[in-house]
Amino acid sequence: MSETVSGDIQQTMESMGERARAASRILARADTGAKDRALRTMAERIEQRGEALLAENRRDLEAGERAGLDQALLDRLAFTPERLAAMAEGLRQIAALPDPVGAISDLNYRPSGIQVGRMRVPLGVVGIIYESRPNVTVDAAGLCLKSGNAAILRGGSEAFHSNRVLAECIREGLEGAGLPADAVQVVGTTDRAAVGALLRMQTYVDVIVPRGGKGLIARVSEESRIPVIKHLDGVCHVYIDDRAQLDKAVAVTVNAKTQRYGTCNTLETLLVAEGIAPRALKALAPAFAEKGVELRGCARTRAFLPEIAEATEADWGAEYLAPILAIRVVPDLDAAIEHIHTYGSGHTDAILTEDYGRARRFLREVDSSSVMVNASTRFADGFEYGLGAEIGISTDKLHARGPVGLEGLTTLKFIVLGDGHVRG
Amino acid sequence: MSETVSGDIQQTMESMGERARAASRILARADTGAKDRALRTMAERIEQRGEALLAENRRDLEAGERAGLDQALLDRLAFTPERLAAMAEGLRQIAALPDPVGAISDLNYRPSGIQVGRMRVPLGVVGIIYESRPNVTVDAAGLCLKSGNAAILRGGSEAFHSNRVLAECIREGLEGAGLPADAVQVVGTTDRAAVGALLRMQTYVDVIVPRGGKGLIARVSEESRIPVIKHLDGVCHVYIDDRAQLDKAVAVTVNAKTQRYGTCNTLETLLVAEGIAPRALKALAPAFAEKGVELRGCARTRAFLPEIAEATEADWGAEYLAPILAIRVVPDLDAAIEHIHTYGSGHTDAILTEDYGRARRFLREVDSSSVMVNASTRFADGFEYGLGAEIGISTDKLHARGPVGLEGLTTLKFIVLGDGHVRG
Repeated sequence: MSETVSGDIQQTMESMGERARAASRILARADTGAKDRALRTMAERIEQRGEALLAENRRDLEAGERAGLDQALLDRLAFTPERLAAMAEGLRQIAALPDPVGAISDLNYRPSGIQVGRMRVPLGVVGIIYESRPNVTVDAAGLCLKSGNAAILRGGSEAFHSNRVLAECIREGLEGAGLPADAVQVVGTTDRAAVGALLRMQTYVDVIVPRGGKGLIARVSEESRIPVIKHLDGVCHVYIDDRAQLDKAVAVTVNAKTQRYGTCNTLETLLVAEGIAPRALKALAPAFAEKGVELRGCARTRAFLPEIAEATEADWGAEYLAPILAIRVVPDLDAAIEHIHTYGSGHTDAILTEDYGRARRFLREVDSSSVMVNASTRFADGFEYGLGAEIGISTDKLHARGPVGLEGLTTLKFIVLGDGHVRG
Repeated sequence: MSETVSGDIQQTMESMGERARAASRILARADTGAKDRALRTMAERIEQRGEALLAENRRDLEAGERAGLDQALLDRLAFTPERLAAMAEGLRQIAALPDPVGAISDLNYRPSGIQVGRMRVPLGVVGIIYESRPNVTVDAAGLCLKSGNAAILRGGSEAFHSNRVLAECIREGLEGAGLPADAVQVVGTTDRAAVGALLRMQTYVDVIVPRGGKGLIARVSEESRIPVIKHLDGVCHVYIDDRAQLDKAVAVTVNAKTQRYGTCNTLETLLVAEGIAPRALKALAPAFAEKGVELRGCARTRAFLPEIAEATEADWGAEYLAPILAIRVVPDLDAAIEHIHTYGSGHTDAILTEDYGRARRFLREVDSSSVMVNASTRFADGFEYGLGAEIGISTDKLHARGPVGLEGLTTLKFIVLGDGHVRG
């Protein structure tokens, strides 16, 4: 963990970058055993220092209350014994995942006689900029370490004291396994200029991962001269086709909306084929009423459910993250896909149908990071997909799309094996 | 092909972007047969219009001479019957490549009962900005089309008339196969503001590929708000280990430097282990002298070859693209890797050795897009690697690294198949 004493933020950040680059070379060739030992030691340290973590976290919470942070923010900031246990468990799960680094694939002989293949390798140095939730410090450190990357972590100023103790646990894990302490550096200043400096250190940082609210993501995307893996909006759709089976459609739609309201893979706009709209809406309305979900519908929806509010243009494309659902009746699959491409955010969209051809078309034609048939959008998640922990869900198209786990923090280089081969 | 009549570049570009996005939806679901028919028709049209292409190209060449373009630029600009035949052949080769779009991989059942897999899909709209060489118009159009992407091509103003006729051939190919003409649009204005507008159309363009000199790449990287796949420098190294076999080492080193001087995968700095330096340098010096290659060496190199010039700091890291070679004697493998990481550009680096452990270490530890053992750096090429045509060689780490073929113009989305599954 680095702390700024001088006011020269730029120089401090450059020095962190230089040390991160040097550490990344060592980490890239570190063996799996050492990395896993470091992860397990970090988990032990977090458990052993529970008291100190809770005490330092209390300092952050008190400062946050004095500064007038809202309750949701304070909730995200707060440690509990359960949350500390979950952090330690998360690190052990990362240790148990297969090491992606060094895997060689597609090694084939070419007509020239050389063998050409690809080797999975770390990206190098990952810069992570995040807000409030200090558990990101631990998750991000663990994922970067296992994928062989050095990390520069810049948490929110409101979690300053909590992050300090976590950084100590991380450093002790690294050193205990004989890995460089600079492999995970936590920015020790709360000066916002540190973020600006980080975003322009192309020489030392290979990718930036922002995690937080839309303001943070927008700032990072605009300012960064380094490639960014980011999550924008989660405006997820379910389309109930007129060949959907009604009971499944109701179950999946209600789950997609109500299993959790605040997550990015929660359903926000429901599209219903007009052929099934009378039956589907009649079955859905009481189910949503029971859960306290406010419905907002297009004119055709309101022909069946006159009691609900009218949806305006702003409702299409809204990410409510709340018990509100926009509903639109559409003529057919084409109109549904058109709506999704016009108003969606390319996150997760599902069709509910028993029709083979329509399922096949939806899968191919909808341009989103996750496209589903007869399943709840809530499944769009690194653990559910079998990736293990995720560093985020990317709504970008390049490099990593959808849940980003260890693989998204690596890249492929070409390897060529010859025996004195020259090009003719 | 679009042409600007009004002076409102911004609006013209936005309109092209909007049409490209619409065309990309159709292209993404186009079947392989239609795309291949379009490619073969384009090839026929180029052959049929040979006279017109040569005549329009002559107009560009005459304008270029009047404008005082240097001979190298005019050479790259010039069409010959052979070059036209090569363009047509290139399109037929792309038609013969397997279609990457829609391929599903890793489709597995998860404990929840859903199946999760990944589908290869087009990026969407690709913007390509290039200089002088009009054959890029044809290569880029072909690769984008086969990979299911719409393309906006912005060639150099010096190739204006040549590109116009090529654009007609491309459009006729698209229309003949029932594909939208807007799938490949060639920017019809030579106004540089068009590039600025293109680089900020995040809504319509998914990736920018610049192809040209360092000035162009630098401008595009700095200005673009859209992800860029780019090629920076090609400072390639060969390291002759003291366990190299001398005859192979000489053959590979001479090939890597002299097979072609102007390419990005050409050897620029030779590193020689001190244990083999006397023998290796003695064997190499006459071979390079015969080819007219100027050698510049470090002090230890000059102890063996006193007649050559002294290499200065500027020689390490120089991309000569010329018959010049920098030579440095290093103590061992560690020093060689350190030199490559300090001065290299992450393009292509090779070790020459018969030592198993050192080959293994070099492959894992050198952080470049292509890492080779006992093979010439000149093999770093899409055709040699079996990718088919390439749109460029990326020195970036994210998304595409090394030669970028059809796969680099696609991405993976997650697909989920269920039967009414909900998340618990």
